Amino acid sequence: MSDGDGAAAFVPGHVTGFFSVHRADDPLRAGSRGAGVTLADGVTTEVVPSDETTVRLNGREVDVESVTRVLDALDATAAVSAETDLPIGSGFGVSGAMALGAALAANDVFGRERSENDLVGVAHAAEVEAGTGLGDVVAQARGGVPIRVEPGAPGVGALDGVPAAGRIEYVSFGELSTSEVIGGGTEALDDAGERALGSLRETPTLPGLLAASRRFAEAADLLDGEVAEAVDAVAAAGGEAAMAMLGRSVFALGTGLSDAGYDAEVTAIHAAGARLR
Amino acid sequence: MSDGDGAAAFVPGHVTGFFSVHRADDPLRAGSRGAGVTLADGVTTEVVPSDETTVRLNGREVDVESVTRVLDALDATAAVSAETDLPIGSGFGVSGAMALGAALAANDVFGRERSENDLVGVAHAAEVEAGTGLGDVVAQARGGVPIRVEPGAPGVGALDGVPAAGRIEYVSFGELSTSEVIGGGTEALDDAGERALGSLRETPTLPGLLAASRRFAEAADLLDGEVAEAVDAVAAAGGEAAMAMLGRSVFALGTGLSDAGYDAEVTAIHAAGARLR
Repeated sequence: MSDGDGAAAFVPGHVTGFFSVHRADDPLRAGSRGAGVTLADGVTTEVVPSDETTVRLNGREVDVESVTRVLDALDATAAVSAETDLPIGSGFGVSGAMALGAALAANDVFGRERSENDLVGVAHAAEVEAGTGLGDVVAQARGGVPIRVEPGAPGVGALDGVPAAGRIEYVSFGELSTSEVIGGGTEALDDAGERALGSLRETPTLPGLLAASRRFAEAADLLDGEVAEAVDAVAAAGGEAAMAMLGRSVFALGTGLSDAGYDAEVTAIHAAGARLR
Repeated sequence: MSDGDGAAAFVPGHVTGFFSVHRADDPLRAGSRGAGVTLADGVTTEVVPSDETTVRLNGREVDVESVTRVLDALDATAAVSAETDLPIGSGFGVSGAMALGAALAANDVFGRERSENDLVGVAHAAEVEAGTGLGDVVAQARGGVPIRVEPGAPGVGALDGVPAAGRIEYVSFGELSTSEVIGGGTEALDDAGERALGSLRETPTLPGLLAASRRFAEAADLLDGEVAEAVDAVAAAGGEAAMAMLGRSVFALGTGLSDAGYDAEVTAIHAAGARLR
């Protein structure tokens, strides 16, 4: 709800464990299959009507194409300011969260009277067209541990979930460009992603998700030194970890990373999807 | 997650503002269209394996057919105990919440490895077959302000939502039997429900939901003395209220009921759907 001048929305972070890319001319039909975990660490995005559109992230002016596309789609000119503790550009869904948060908040403050599915579609299409994400938005709109069974926006795609709650830890070793990895040919990655999805749908549990994600990262040849080392160290300490797609980041169940000696951030599976504050 | 012996799940309450009935031989395809509000006041259901199945609600042994059907479907024999502050049998979705909570918790404690959609389907089918609900379970699985666009379980039905947050008040004047109202012919009610849904999809806002719900209750001839009086009193005080289907209960936005002089319970739109604790 509006707090007077503006409106704000909270969108959970999202780490993807595995995925396959599904292209389509209609951005509502494009997307990814896959699965991941939404995080209680997320992004709060405030929208205030203004004479010109500006976008800030943690106080610094930034250029986030998916956010400006969302504002254009809702015929809104506004000052957008987002705050997050999540690492940027490292596989935590920050751009998707900003796009979806901007959609929810702009709809509210400008009285656009769109439904939630419509707003998720606007943010999903904006991410697809900006080349910055294929599946974060629909997962972040849902919350929990989303399985992206069919790609695309609400009304086109389909979601399921792993029934689970609990603590999640993560570390990030730096950025990885989503558009570089998914901009080119993705056949090997897509095959591995489809295999991982089949495996998870047989065993929709958190250990099933982490195991499928590790096999995906190996098959898709995305594990680099520090990331591979952390995933292995958690396993050696008896825990469950995987790489966050697409970032040089690792997430683990429970106390997996701290048990392995890492100075990890602590969060939890987020029970809710994106919501107005 | 399991707390040792058992597992527990929280499921939000749900008040339906309007609905239409959709029958089908397959209980996963049966259900209702309509819309309502999920409530932060809800039901916590714990499942502990046991030699015989028992069901308790607020400490008293009860017979809730949808819960025993859920346990049967998951091949589980257990002591189920549910706790809630919500009024029972009065349109707040308590039986649906118990069925869905039992499904999530039993899946966890018995290691059944079902997905969330599967578990929602099990609980939805159990409610339909018991004759105690047609749409609460899918709404409670989602959270927020669910619009039931197409009837039925996940994979069959379809949901949208009104993007909204905020305080909700409610009062209850007593029980109304779901099976009596929806057990017989429902043509007049169904027509009114379809008109209300069309109206809400044009204006998916909270005031739009409350206005469509009031028109539905009048057209379906379900308003009795105390309920009609409370809805009118809230309107006279400048607020928005509607009848909770199916109960002799009234819910209002913000401080609507207390502004009209009622000693109302205070809760809020629940951001999350049903989740393991």
